[in-house]
Amino acid sequence: MIIAVDAAGGDFAPWEVVKGAIKAAQEFGVGIALVGSGEILHVLAGKYLKKLPITFVEASQVIGFNEHAIQAIQTKPDSSIVVGINLLKQGKVDAFVSAGHSGAVFAAGMFILGKIEGTPRPAIGCFINLDPSKLAFLIDAGANVECRPEHLVWFAHMGSLYLSQIYGIESPRVGLLSNGAEDTKGDKLVIETNHLLKNTKLNFIGNIEGHDIMQGTAEVIVTDGFTGNIVLKTVEGIYDNWLSSMKEANQRVAKAYRQSVKTLNRDTDIGSWTKKLDFREYGGACLLGINGNVIISHGRSQATAIKNAIGLAIRTAERSVPQKIKEENND
Amino acid sequence: MIIAVDAAGGDFAPWEVVKGAIKAAQEFGVGIALVGSGEILHVLAGKYLKKLPITFVEASQVIGFNEHAIQAIQTKPDSSIVVGINLLKQGKVDAFVSAGHSGAVFAAGMFILGKIEGTPRPAIGCFINLDPSKLAFLIDAGANVECRPEHLVWFAHMGSLYLSQIYGIESPRVGLLSNGAEDTKGDKLVIETNHLLKNTKLNFIGNIEGHDIMQGTAEVIVTDGFTGNIVLKTVEGIYDNWLSSMKEANQRVAKAYRQSVKTLNRDTDIGSWTKKLDFREYGGACLLGINGNVIISHGRSQATAIKNAIGLAIRTAERSVPQKIKEENND
Repeated sequence: MIIAVDAAGGDFAPWEVVKGAIKAAQEFGVGIALVGSGEILHVLAGKYLKKLPITFVEASQVIGFNEHAIQAIQTKPDSSIVVGINLLKQGKVDAFVSAGHSGAVFAAGMFILGKIEGTPRPAIGCFINLDPSKLAFLIDAGANVECRPEHLVWFAHMGSLYLSQIYGIESPRVGLLSNGAEDTKGDKLVIETNHLLKNTKLNFIGNIEGHDIMQGTAEVIVTDGFTGNIVLKTVEGIYDNWLSSMKEANQRVAKAYRQSVKTLNRDTDIGSWTKKLDFREYGGACLLGINGNVIISHGRSQATAIKNAIGLAIRTAERSVPQKIKEENND
Repeated sequence: MIIAVDAAGGDFAPWEVVKGAIKAAQEFGVGIALVGSGEILHVLAGKYLKKLPITFVEASQVIGFNEHAIQAIQTKPDSSIVVGINLLKQGKVDAFVSAGHSGAVFAAGMFILGKIEGTPRPAIGCFINLDPSKLAFLIDAGANVECRPEHLVWFAHMGSLYLSQIYGIESPRVGLLSNGAEDTKGDKLVIETNHLLKNTKLNFIGNIEGHDIMQGTAEVIVTDGFTGNIVLKTVEGIYDNWLSSMKEANQRVAKAYRQSVKTLNRDTDIGSWTKKLDFREYGGACLLGINGNVIISHGRSQATAIKNAIGLAIRTAERSVPQKIKEENND
């Protein structure tokens, strides 16, 4: 198995991406195709080439975070994102991981790989739980701003299938995000979707509310891409806020106990403890409904997050998720 | 000035509500009308009657959190919420504070007090910032699920006016919650609202994203009641999650330093430090656009939160917010 990794994407590219890819090659024994400037990559990872199954694929262009997604993929055919997605299209790699411009990755996936035949709408799914034991897979996290009820039903199917394939959860609980738990609560889209979801074979538990997200009430949280994007970014914003507060608090604690802090570090290092809960360290977002295994890692991913995203890419490829979605669609 | 307080509403009623009301009477020197079962109130607060300007108003019924809002206010005319709102209608009190069923308070406000003439839609506004120095007033936080662009523009006006009246901010920054900062991002409602807001005299800074909420990018965050409710409850859910985690972490730290923790409490008591950041302790939600000063405190309010909600009610009444909204509407 070979995973293509966008070495030019993300705030900490190329160094943290390369580090994460090397770690993944060591830990998972998987082949890695690093996509980016060969010259830079050689300096960073050249010494690993003989020891690990790592190759370089040249891509001379980079898509910046502020570029218009569709324009960028059209005008930069030699960008790491377009080159990486093309490798996937040509069957040269099994999955593509990028911490770059998520809109551009989505657009490249749509245009180059195409959506799975019969799929109403591809979507972005990602975990937003802070507690690793309470999975919360949000779908759609931002791809489809305007949705119809049948789109949300399809997101529920893809999310449920993904959770069962990747996490082995037999019948994931599916919740529909709304402003109240009762079936009558919600906007028109939610009320109609609630009705449709009841008539599926999914383990639909009904409407859920914002405070249910972190409670583990449902493993699959279905919503439109407008609301999903706002929820995802709200959670991220609070999280960043807390991380910096915790860092401060940790420094205060450390200062107070300067003498003994070294030996008691495990109990006082709240900063590292909170970092363990960072949902962005685990895996990444998945493009579901397109012909290929594409994982979007967070823009601020460092080595561990990249390594974990590659791990998720491996699991997604091993389980042939796009093929399963195709079968689900034909049912 | 007299503030009516719903002594039967909230998870910690009546005791914490009564305690908060007594504190408010002591601290702010304001008259309090406690609405609830006279018998219970006499046991709890009887000894303060001679010392403080507190009176009891009998209300024999209670509206539970699971009741249907409109049905409840229609079938329970002697409930603390209906009695309290009626006191306001009759001009016997200057404001009403309740930690009870927020939907029922909103419905009672709409039916009994009525909306301000010419106001397109009343809305619920509330602060959701975790950092007290970075105000984030969310409007609408849940009253109007289906909105038109002109409703959102009106929410922006009311929110801006509220911030300038209550916090003395001359020209509050108004942000429109969307899935991207560009004017072209958003669903139809947001795109049209963005266009309309540009043509107002408001200090409209454009679209903002989920991660801007806690950054203090805008003091007024405009959204429809569906999205607003989900955002509010998501923030609350994460917050509760963190509070319990912090409590745990705090216990671990305390355990590690059992010997010295008493003397060094200020630096290690992260639990109490996080509590200081609890946005629910400060003020409460306001019903804006109805003929009266109504503050909805959080269902889990304890004494300090109730006291602060009463403080906010006093400021709201002093600034004659409904009158100002009426004037704004006639501009």
